[in-house]
Amino acid sequence: MRFSPLLEQLIETLRCLPGVGPKTAQRMALQLLTRGRDNGKRLAKSLIEAMENIGHCQQCRIFSETDICEICTSKHRDSGLLCIVENPIDVSVIEQTSSFRGKYFVLLGHLSPLDGIGPEEIGIAQLKKHFERGDIHEVILATNPTVEGEATAHYISEMAKQHSIKVTRIARGVSIGSELEYIDPNTLAHAFAGRETI
Amino acid sequence: MRFSPLLEQLIETLRCLPGVGPKTAQRMALQLLTRGRDNGKRLAKSLIEAMENIGHCQQCRIFSETDICEICTSKHRDSGLLCIVENPIDVSVIEQTSSFRGKYFVLLGHLSPLDGIGPEEIGIAQLKKHFERGDIHEVILATNPTVEGEATAHYISEMAKQHSIKVTRIARGVSIGSELEYIDPNTLAHAFAGRETI
Repeated sequence: MRFSPLLEQLIETLRCLPGVGPKTAQRMALQLLTRGRDNGKRLAKSLIEAMENIGHCQQCRIFSETDICEICTSKHRDSGLLCIVENPIDVSVIEQTSSFRGKYFVLLGHLSPLDGIGPEEIGIAQLKKHFERGDIHEVILATNPTVEGEATAHYISEMAKQHSIKVTRIARGVSIGSELEYIDPNTLAHAFAGRETI
Repeated sequence: MRFSPLLEQLIETLRCLPGVGPKTAQRMALQLLTRGRDNGKRLAKSLIEAMENIGHCQQCRIFSETDICEICTSKHRDSGLLCIVENPIDVSVIEQTSSFRGKYFVLLGHLSPLDGIGPEEIGIAQLKKHFERGDIHEVILATNPTVEGEATAHYISEMAKQHSIKVTRIARGVSIGSELEYIDPNTLAHAFAGRETI
């Protein structure tokens, strides 16, 4: 015996959260019981509401409880500029930079044939319909700079070119504040290849 | 705008968990939505069950959904040996050692006059009733080796002595596997004072 059955069950279910191991789950459960029962109930309520009501925006596939998300309905954003990202969190990260005023399309993954993830799984058919609409003047590929991300970007760029849409890829180079000494050769090669005239 | 209102709400409420900051909460919420909706609902259910049904054992004050916990009802444990700890998690830690077969009393805190925590808040009245029962032959003080823990241990030891009960304090000394070089002087002094004949 370690804890009462209900407490053991709570500790066990808390472990479904990413990064939460047995010790952390124990600490969370005990802290909620000791001085956060109202918070615990609020969390339960908000979990149920979110799990049951949040779907995907029918246009850009970001998480949204409405059919079309706020970004897609916004009249202040350029519908002709489409940024393609892998995950919903990427949208949030890009929004924080305040440097992009177009719209998004979220793939919810990347091409990975070995894992059985092909064009269908990442919404390519839906993306094609956007391209066929004819009002997109530029597609910005902001998939991750990984092998899978690059392959996915390449696949989409070929498709966009067939629709005569200009395609760009976010710059790969050195991070602001980093030191050349610690940068991997591949990134540095990209930084040289993508050098800009000043 | 960053996420949809329900998603923002979920991220905000996840932050009530200890050690969860904005980034972690975001990751948790997005991961639950992406590939753990059933887990999310299970977590919500188990949170509600726990928050509403788990109380304290009427005898030892550990978390329990029954009036008397499993340890207190056990016939295989020595009721005459009472181990006093500060927190419910301490019981779990001691149980893992399998070296104690008595019963527990959980203070749910320690004396801390500056924070307004006096004997009443840590269940001293209830503990006194246990002492008055007359069948306790030894009280083991396992409060934390901190200033407050030592003060609490001292307070309880005085009370136990009034009832002519033998009182012991868990040994304070060097940790197994540690090196003398890195041990604080206070602990080392305790290790010398508490040395054992071999």
